[in-house]
Formats: sequence, structure tokens, C-alpha cells
Amino acid sequence: MRGAGPALGPGGEFDRIRNILRDLPPQPGSRVGPGDDAAVLSDGVVLSTDLTVEGVHFRLDWISPEEAGGRAVVAALSDLAAMAAEPIGVLVSLAVPEAGPGPEPFMAGVRERIDEMGIPLLGGDLTRSPGPVILDAVVVGRVESPLLRAGARPGDALWVTGTLGGAAAAVAAWTSDGVPHPEFRERFARPRARIPEARWLRERCALSAGLDLSDGLAGDAAHLAAASGVGVLLRGGTLPVHPRFREGKADGDGSGALECALHGGEDYELLLAAPQGEMEPWVEEFRRSFDLSLTRVGEVMAGEGVWILHGDNEEPMRVERGGWDHFRGMPWESGGEG
Amino acid sequence: MRGAGPALGPGGEFDRIRNILRDLPPQPGSRVGPGDDAAVLSDGVVLSTDLTVEGVHFRLDWISPEEAGGRAVVAALSDLAAMAAEPIGVLVSLAVPEAGPGPEPFMAGVRERIDEMGIPLLGGDLTRSPGPVILDAVVVGRVESPLLRAGARPGDALWVTGTLGGAAAAVAAWTSDGVPHPEFRERFARPRARIPEARWLRERCALSAGLDLSDGLAGDAAHLAAASGVGVLLRGGTLPVHPRFREGKADGDGSGALECALHGGEDYELLLAAPQGEMEPWVEEFRRSFDLSLTRVGEVMAGEGVWILHGDNEEPMRVERGGWDHFRGMPWESGGEG
Repeated sequence: MRGAGPALGPGGEFDRIRNILRDLPPQPGSRVGPGDDAAVLSDGVVLSTDLTVEGVHFRLDWISPEEAGGRAVVAALSDLAAMAAEPIGVLVSLAVPEAGPGPEPFMAGVRERIDEMGIPLLGGDLTRSPGPVILDAVVVGRVESPLLRAGARPGDALWVTGTLGGAAAAVAAWTSDGVPHPEFRERFARPRARIPEARWLRERCALSAGLDLSDGLAGDAAHLAAASGVGVLLRGGTLPVHPRFREGKADGDGSGALECALHGGEDYELLLAAPQGEMEPWVEEFRRSFDLSLTRVGEVMAGEGVWILHGDNEEPMRVERGGWDHFRGMPWESGGEG
Repeated sequence: MRGAGPALGPGGEFDRIRNILRDLPPQPGSRVGPGDDAAVLSDGVVLSTDLTVEGVHFRLDWISPEEAGGRAVVAALSDLAAMAAEPIGVLVSLAVPEAGPGPEPFMAGVRERIDEMGIPLLGGDLTRSPGPVILDAVVVGRVESPLLRAGARPGDALWVTGTLGGAAAAVAAWTSDGVPHPEFRERFARPRARIPEARWLRERCALSAGLDLSDGLAGDAAHLAAASGVGVLLRGGTLPVHPRFREGKADGDGSGALECALHGGEDYELLLAAPQGEMEPWVEEFRRSFDLSLTRVGEVMAGEGVWILHGDNEEPMRVERGGWDHFRGMPWESGGEG
């Protein structure tokens, strides 16, 4: 609706985006407005831009420059996965301080990740930074019929690819001066953009809505709920928490695992809504094809907001807070998480 | 040529871009590779990304947040003018520190400038910065036949729109604790992207090459020369220096004006090459249509590099240094200029 701004979940970052995008003039060349994962032009070209800033999204005492560059471009490519779009290429803008490793290792990390996906580097910009390393990745793709955040209907089942919470568990370890489990570290340092997975499912199943999990399951489910005008019920016991939560300190009483899975951002898995029975026949072939699980985590309901059911005999509880809120700061800067 | 990297002029920033882009795999979806002003996809979609960083490209004690936002998006749109492309829309990524004016005035400046050009905002990203304000503007356009840096031939005449050196003169005044002439300030704070001008000329004249003047006439002429495999001869007496250089301190002995015009970046005028006689019939109508001059500034020669002739009886001198080099730093941080 003109003037109402895009439908996003709660959170300071999203309130500000809403304000900034409100009262946009009609977008003549575009089919999908600001507020979804990417812009879709009238001829099916999909565009997204994703800004990564040292000290906000990563630290160089946690990961290498190569990993930081690769992670930044994968985060951007994940927006193509969110729409089930086919990649055309990427453009990378990079700013680095004069003291430090220079631009080359960051770009080497970008190149490694896009080369392995066969995605060309189309251009970019290089400049000096007075402080933090800054990397903006622009991804370009194409899609006939984009998968949107809007479209989920009451009764749809909700599915998640892969496992959740690993990236947040790595951050939790680093911020408490610990050393993350290597598998948690890998989830933070080398995430994957689920592009082939999204396209595979899109070809086989009548997906009604979807997006990538960059803000945490709770926050991204809230985006889906708001965009679709529905509520979301998550079943706590079914969430595919990363299996390494069962080892070592990270799980504690188990609440750490659920907290990381719900509120930890940047797992870059997919959250998908589909009518009941659509996905079930494909779960096993999906697992074999991609060595990746596909887990039913809840349902779409009439209503609004995100709710969680911890046991069958309990009442659903409202999930009050969203996931990551980059404008407010990451958890280690705004009160701690995990 | 595969493996040689794109043909850019001299300068530390360009050397690093060359290294980073060398040995790129073939770019299947693109018609113009990295190294020109923008990427051109196979269906004529043009893309460019332009990163603006506080303390590198602007300071908030010089210009307002609104002006900084507007300037950043115009700098990006100027890459569409450079290719004579028609704008489709822009995406803006913004990072701002928690202390400061917040994102709104920067985005208001973006919106003001794109609204006046009728260009839609298609999306973006908002995050927190640990220090400088960071704005990456992605511009999307379309062009049947892009105007490239390559294509200038010996014997072509070289033309420049508008006047040069104003933005650099403003920076020179600020960095020597002065107050710039309001017209110089305006050139820095509110540049124009010469998109209608480029499209008007492209429709009427057989332009052989062109680009926008973001690095300074000397530096951008070097890009054109390198990409076209030619030399460039500039006639010093013909350069359209900003008329306010004739007033006040800024001109001094006149060398300040020439220095700003040759080496001052970010005037965002156009440098165009065309066969002799192509542009002359249109100069007056162009001036009336856009209230903007179109000035012949030199010729394309066989050879390489950029040369300047200060008087008809003198020998051409090699112009040794490029224009702005953002990686090396702006002039006020690397030795002074103007």
C-alpha cells in the first residue's frame, strides 16, 4: 500500500528502513518494492546490496581477511537464494585502511567463493577507509517468478534447510573470550548461499513464501509473517539446532542452543512456507542431493506475530524480540546473547 | 585480453584494481568487463556501485548530511551518464554511527536528488558504523549501445561539458581553513549527473568514446587513452576552468585554476571523443538546451599517455600524474593540491 511502507518485522533497524522507504513514489521499472530481500526489475533482473562493516559484522581477530571477504559476498548472494533467483554476477566495493592487510586478501576471499559457484565478478570500486574495513557486495540475478516474503497462507507448513545457531554460537564463544568449536567457527566464517537448494525446491514444490535466515529464525519469521499478513507458530522441539550444541559448554542446559537457533543471525539457511504435503515427498532426495537436512519447524496461522510452542501440553508463547538488529548493534555490543 | 587486466590509467588505486581483476574468468552474462565505468549485462542492463566514505570523500564540517547523501548518489549516477545509459533505479546501503545525525538526513538527500531526476529507490541496506558514515550507491540503467572508454581514434576531437575545477577549489579552500566561494562550494556539495546531456549527444553525434570526470581531467583522459590505445593532447588554453577562478584568491597566478581543472576530481562533467566536425554543429543547441557549455579541449593522437600544450609555440609536456587516487588518499591527506 502506498504510504504504509514495506511490511517488515519489529526492530529498530526495520523501523528506520520503514521510515526511509515510506511514501516512495511508484517504482515504474520494478515488480517487487523495497522491503523484500532484493529488488526485482520488470524484466526479472534481481538486485540486492549488502553492506559489511568491520566491528559490526565481523572482527579480524576472529576470522581472516579472506574469510571476511568470502562471508560478505555469500551474505549478499544469500538474497538471491531467498528469491530462488539464478546468479548473473556480483560487484564489490571495498574500503580498507592504509595500515592493514590491504585490499588483496579480502578480494581473494570474494573470488574464491564466487569462483566455486561459477559467478563472475562484474565490477566494483576500491577506496581508502579512515578506519574499519568496509565491503559492499551487489548481487545481480534473474528469476522468472521470484519467491517472496509475502504469500504464506494459514495452514502452510514452515520448513528450514540445514541447521541453525552455529554462527551465533561462534560469536558467543568469541565474545566470552572462548574458542568456538571448529564447526561453529566454520558456520560463521564460511557460510553458504543456498542458491542451488532454493532453485531445486522451487522447481519441484509449490512454495508459497520464503526468505533467507540472516536475522535469526525469530526475526526472519516475523518478516515473513508481516509481509504475508499471517502469524507463525514455531514448534521448539523440532528446530534443527546445530548438532555440536550437544557437546561442550555451548549448550549448557540447552537454552543456549534454542537461543542461538531462534535469535542468532547469519546462518544463511532458508525459511520456506508451503502447503501441507508439498515438501514431504522431496525431503529425502533433497538430503541426498545436497547433503543437507530439510526440517519442518512449524505452521502458518491466521493472526500475526511469531509464537513458539515448547511442548504439546503448553500454551504458545509470543516470541517478543527479533533476531539481529544491525542498527542497534550486534549482541556483544548491546547486552550479550547466547 | 584475458589475463592482462583492464586498461586503466596510472595510479596506486588503479594498479590495485588491475591486480584484483587480473585473470578474471570469462564474464558470461556481460558485454563490458570490469574496468569501464559500469558493467553492462548481455541484455543491456548497466550496473555500477560507488562507495563514499566520510573522511575520504567528504567531511561533515564541510557539507550537510543531506548534501553528503545527495552527492554520493549523484557520483554513482554519473557512471550511467558516462555510458549514456538511461536510469532504471538506485539501491543505497548506508552505515551511520550511533552518535550523529542518524540515517534519515543522508537518505533525505539521496531522495531529493533522485526524485528531481525521476529515478526510483529500489532497495538498500542499513547498518551501524563503528566510525565514519559510509554510503554505497548502486545504480541500474539500460542502454542499447553503451558509450565506452575504448573507441577513441587518432584525429578525434576531445570535448568537455560544463566547467572544471570548481569542486577541487572548494576542497582547497576548506583544507587551507578558508571559506570556498559559494559557487565552488555548490560544485562540490551539489554536483550533477550529466545523464540527459549524455543521451542527447549520443542521439545526435557519432561519439567514439567517453567517460565522466570523477578522477580529474588528466586522470580520466589517461583512462580513455589507455582503454582506446591512443594518446591524448590537451590544449591548456582551451580548458573550461570555472569562471569564479578569475575572482579572489583562488586563481593566484592562474596556475591554481589549471591545477584544479586538470587534477581536481569530482566535477562529474563528461569527457567525450568524436571525429572532427561531429560535435561542432550541436554546440549552440546543446548550450541552449542545458544551459551548459561544450568545449573542445584537445585531440586524440597516435601513441599513449596524456600530453598538454600550453601555447602554440611550445612543446607538448607529458602530464605525469593522474587525478584523484582514492586509495592513496585525497589531496588534503597526501601532500596538498590546488
